[in-house]
Amino acid sequence: MSVPVYLDHNATTPVASEVAEAMSIALRKSFGNPSSAYPLGQAAAEQVAVARNAVASLIGAKAENLVFTGCATEANNLALLGVASACTPNKRHLVISAVEHPAVMAPARQLEAQGWRLTIVPVDEAGRVSVEAVVDAVRPDTALVSIMLANNEVGTLQPVADIAKQLDNSDVLLHTDAAQAVGKIAVDVEALGIDLLTIAGHKFQASKGIGALYVRQGTPIRQILFGANHERGLRPGTENVPAIIGLGVAAELAAKRLAQANTAMRDRRDQLHQLLSASIPGLSLNGHFEARLPNTLNVSFPYVSGQALLNAASDTVMASVGSACHAGESAPSGVLGAMGLDTQRALGAVRLSMGWDTTQDEIATAAAALVHAWRHLAYGA
Amino acid sequence: MSVPVYLDHNATTPVASEVAEAMSIALRKSFGNPSSAYPLGQAAAEQVAVARNAVASLIGAKAENLVFTGCATEANNLALLGVASACTPNKRHLVISAVEHPAVMAPARQLEAQGWRLTIVPVDEAGRVSVEAVVDAVRPDTALVSIMLANNEVGTLQPVADIAKQLDNSDVLLHTDAAQAVGKIAVDVEALGIDLLTIAGHKFQASKGIGALYVRQGTPIRQILFGANHERGLRPGTENVPAIIGLGVAAELAAKRLAQANTAMRDRRDQLHQLLSASIPGLSLNGHFEARLPNTLNVSFPYVSGQALLNAASDTVMASVGSACHAGESAPSGVLGAMGLDTQRALGAVRLSMGWDTTQDEIATAAAALVHAWRHLAYGA
Repeated sequence: MSVPVYLDHNATTPVASEVAEAMSIALRKSFGNPSSAYPLGQAAAEQVAVARNAVASLIGAKAENLVFTGCATEANNLALLGVASACTPNKRHLVISAVEHPAVMAPARQLEAQGWRLTIVPVDEAGRVSVEAVVDAVRPDTALVSIMLANNEVGTLQPVADIAKQLDNSDVLLHTDAAQAVGKIAVDVEALGIDLLTIAGHKFQASKGIGALYVRQGTPIRQILFGANHERGLRPGTENVPAIIGLGVAAELAAKRLAQANTAMRDRRDQLHQLLSASIPGLSLNGHFEARLPNTLNVSFPYVSGQALLNAASDTVMASVGSACHAGESAPSGVLGAMGLDTQRALGAVRLSMGWDTTQDEIATAAAALVHAWRHLAYGA
Repeated sequence: MSVPVYLDHNATTPVASEVAEAMSIALRKSFGNPSSAYPLGQAAAEQVAVARNAVASLIGAKAENLVFTGCATEANNLALLGVASACTPNKRHLVISAVEHPAVMAPARQLEAQGWRLTIVPVDEAGRVSVEAVVDAVRPDTALVSIMLANNEVGTLQPVADIAKQLDNSDVLLHTDAAQAVGKIAVDVEALGIDLLTIAGHKFQASKGIGALYVRQGTPIRQILFGANHERGLRPGTENVPAIIGLGVAAELAAKRLAQANTAMRDRRDQLHQLLSASIPGLSLNGHFEARLPNTLNVSFPYVSGQALLNAASDTVMASVGSACHAGESAPSGVLGAMGLDTQRALGAVRLSMGWDTTQDEIATAAAALVHAWRHLAYGA
């Protein structure tokens, strides 16, 4: 039996062979502690510096404004809780969207439990906030606005740059969770105009266990984990040298391949959408038709549950009904709920997410399997 | 020129070849998200479960009581801040020793800044707390006692099991930072009688970027990072599958090799001590002569600064004057200060820490280089 087609790149990506190779070498050779004074330690520190430059360069940032973390969840926590910790008592209001990842939603709720005021801006049926609604939610006591750049389930892109322009003359900080965007679309912190931006290594061919937070120079923020003075005092703990080296290589690959991969993924995504639409009357797209990640196709299949469909097609295609973080939960996705989808349509949803190297043949194979499974479930065919 | 002898295993260890190999394979093959329902994801989840069993087994714990974290610093933060978060308001007192690592000292100070009362128990000239002093520090409002198992700078072992026995009938929780102990001495959570125990991967031949916290069943503790429900709700973020697999392999190696490695390291340590003592009148041992890590020799060289000595011998030996986390700081070590060493002796200190595979020849080479450098600096010889 051949290996099933992997269409779950929003859950996690394969590690690029160049990244795996660099990490394998680092695990064997670069074991020095970057804080150690002797050459072995300083060589590791130098490799961390090279990687920091590469990652910063990918997002148009300066290396010194990048903090490496243990994962994107930690980076999001550092953004929200770290800014909150540095805020004056008259700034205790936070604005987020209704479709944020749990790694933003949960720390926001935690701040709310600590007495912060929280405004959750609704999204439209395509999963998008309106710039006006976000700006209207800002009050004199607003410290931070956190709006994701691209949604993990439906791929909808948020108007983050437009929000930043509207907030430009205020003292409100703007964070964006770009975990799903980096490595799929061009991301530039200056073009976006944001103060804080979250990166997830394992969403663009680096390893799990490494994330980063961009922090614009001068942003008031404090550490949320306490220890020695690594990462300019913002994140203690011996640097994860091999994973950081790998993240640097992944960033270089993304910089080199992004434009082409973006187009290729979009073509595969639309090819898949067409193949499914042609055979499945009533198939509906979830998310924004235009303003969407090039790799993400979230569609609701009529008459069937998305999970049952994926189970039936599991020999041929790997995908998920929503965020991997929610796998095993039977309730429909909160993102689709926030978009106003009815329960039946939400339960029929499947997220199909392509990678840089997904081929036309793989798409054809996956589409045929999904159509076959759908016909079997819906009609007993 | 040959490679200098590495005697800084307390800063970080080389990754075992078996660990590097397992991680290299995992980086290439095991990229599934453990939360994903399909076989690729479940295979990753299964590998994480196998590793969890191996790490738990090394410390005599049940797998379900182990939480993987991004580093030992995070595990220490989870122990202190996570227990504090779960405490009732009448329990806001914390007891630590004067020689804790910054990864315990700093979160303790953070709790103090939040209104907690903090008692720092002094140590004797060998770096040891007395059981009585710790027990006497406990009050009706004490929530947690955190005493490290082995000191990172001088290797002194603390009487954690005896403290646990004294606290056995109280509701006070006991945490031990075992970052330097695991992989060097036998560590068993039941024999120790502790409630929480911190593990650092890169201190025993696993990779940087992975730690773990043992949490005894029923211990009141809350997450300190917020997101999805990984690690039974105690640590969100996609599992660092390759590093966790590597930690499991390192734990298996430690279980297999520990007894022999313990003896070998002790022999090398004492060989080095004898060689240095025989040639350097006035050399003084820092730390407890008996109750000490088998791999750690911290000695003060008379008339010279430890850093100048290491610089002079840097072609032949890699070691440090104290914790790698403090490298670059010119102030004498806080640990040695807490032990009551005068400034001159503290500044003359060098930490020499062996690994499982350090050879007699390496020790002889390192000793000769240190003696040569000392004679040159002290006498211009």
